Amino acid sequence: MKRRAQRRGEFDLIAKYFAPLARGETGALGLTDDAAYLSPAAGRDVVVTTDAIVEGVHFLPGDPPAAIAQKALRVNISDLAAKGAKPRAYMLTAILPSMIDDDWLAAFASGLKQDQKRFGLTLIGGDTVSTRGPLTLSITAIGEVACGRMVKRSGAQVGDDVWVSGSIGDAGLGLIQSTPQKLSLPTVHTSYLISRYQVPQPRLTLGLALVGLAHACIDVSDGLVADLGHICTASGVSILVNGADIPLSRAAAAALAAGEISLESLLTSGDDYELAFTAPASARTRLTGIAATLKIKIARIGRAGGGEGVSVLDDDSKPLHFDRRGFTHF
Amino acid sequence: MKRRAQRRGEFDLIAKYFAPLARGETGALGLTDDAAYLSPAAGRDVVVTTDAIVEGVHFLPGDPPAAIAQKALRVNISDLAAKGAKPRAYMLTAILPSMIDDDWLAAFASGLKQDQKRFGLTLIGGDTVSTRGPLTLSITAIGEVACGRMVKRSGAQVGDDVWVSGSIGDAGLGLIQSTPQKLSLPTVHTSYLISRYQVPQPRLTLGLALVGLAHACIDVSDGLVADLGHICTASGVSILVNGADIPLSRAAAAALAAGEISLESLLTSGDDYELAFTAPASARTRLTGIAATLKIKIARIGRAGGGEGVSVLDDDSKPLHFDRRGFTHF
Repeated sequence: MKRRAQRRGEFDLIAKYFAPLARGETGALGLTDDAAYLSPAAGRDVVVTTDAIVEGVHFLPGDPPAAIAQKALRVNISDLAAKGAKPRAYMLTAILPSMIDDDWLAAFASGLKQDQKRFGLTLIGGDTVSTRGPLTLSITAIGEVACGRMVKRSGAQVGDDVWVSGSIGDAGLGLIQSTPQKLSLPTVHTSYLISRYQVPQPRLTLGLALVGLAHACIDVSDGLVADLGHICTASGVSILVNGADIPLSRAAAAALAAGEISLESLLTSGDDYELAFTAPASARTRLTGIAATLKIKIARIGRAGGGEGVSVLDDDSKPLHFDRRGFTHF
Repeated sequence: MKRRAQRRGEFDLIAKYFAPLARGETGALGLTDDAAYLSPAAGRDVVVTTDAIVEGVHFLPGDPPAAIAQKALRVNISDLAAKGAKPRAYMLTAILPSMIDDDWLAAFASGLKQDQKRFGLTLIGGDTVSTRGPLTLSITAIGEVACGRMVKRSGAQVGDDVWVSGSIGDAGLGLIQSTPQKLSLPTVHTSYLISRYQVPQPRLTLGLALVGLAHACIDVSDGLVADLGHICTASGVSILVNGADIPLSRAAAAALAAGEISLESLLTSGDDYELAFTAPASARTRLTGIAATLKIKIARIGRAGGGEGVSVLDDDSKPLHFDRRGFTHF
């Protein structure tokens, strides 16, 4: 881990809290060199992904530091999961405002430590700089997959089933419930939804099991409709989704039933970090078996066809209309 | 390249300007997937480094966008150079304030494009987020080196010569010359010094040639004394430097002779991006031959001994005193 300019008093703390996270990967050199090295096993591709999270956008100023650490790491692990890649190492660029103190860093590092153990990867380097702007965390995660076997967005075929794991729209609701504009929902639902927003659950075991089975996969970060749109664009297919088949949590279903939120909003709110994937109909039995073994719910929500774009049908088989398909237009 | 939340109008521009930079590396998938993959050649280690640069700290608000792009990339290439690693790919996290526009991004991307060609690496992914804070660029660069041959900071041995490439202190002077507090120096010197601050010249060809020859190497980013200190700490040696042997540019020598700057300041001002390395005395002839072939000046400035810490002797063999040894204390 480089220690660069505009150093601050807590750089000893950084050495104290971050260097221990580098144990277990020889090439990390205890974060004391200009770079780290990895020796990939023969026949393995290195898979690399980068995601940054910004205070006030991807997390809120008052969020617990351990949860922020885990979100920063997990959004990257979720990308590796979607590619069928086993996480191995990561680089952390921490862009810190001046109010970050000892206690905050200790809690932040403890969040990273827990997740390193849980997901099997090690800090191998990074950079720490000060900013007068918001706290920003950029992580580059490195994984491995059998040579040529990375699951891409571009492999979907006409006729494929379209699947999604877990439940959709919870994180978007969690964000709303974290603000003064919160919806009128039971406390138990609000707690659940906020936890879904604060700490994503990357579907790593599922992603690893999809290698050689899914034709295309993406993690749902921009919103389900937008992310299925990415698969459509990359694969040259269309996707037709049955709105009634979208898996919803009890909390989201209650919000929908009470008219507090629309299905359109749930499908475009982002930060779900579920896996959306396509697979041939012949894989159905194996997929449901895998899901049962892993204790992860998966739902078959639609089908890939010719043409382009994503359509979602309501209960009356009428297409839903989306003003926005996620955080960006396509 | 993930397109994440708080999207802005210029995301089409980013696709327009950044996606072309991903051509030439199959595994970059045109920046259209969640992750990229690389297939390292057999017998090669992957070398990974991360450095971030922040507006107002590592570059100035008015600096040309192409120069900012090249500085962001080159500080990372300099790290790979110090490790003897051949650059291959990089991930870019661009944290952009709202005033970044079309023209700025076009110029920024053109700077990256030139350097990709010059140093032989390709953009394979990244992330782009908005900030209300300063423009910040975090790059993770990936290189390759023969298995187990990465040149570390920790290999220096008692009796090694200590060498440094190029000239020291120019970038620090260039920063001063970029501010209202500028020193009284001839314009030609000021232009040279500012260019040294704005656009580092990573010593890549030299770094690659040092594999198997240098015992330890570091790129000089924190200031020569601080960075030699890193080698001392990692290697368990001391380093004694002859101040008179420090290579200075004509501009820096003039500033020193005119009493505008102290040698202590030049040795602690950072951002030189030269290589400091140690090698056995038996390597002298080969090293000077390599330097001549590569047309890169190298200077033998001192020696590694027992004990710890860096000392610099003046012309009267008295040790210089450093209030600060770079941007941080050790």
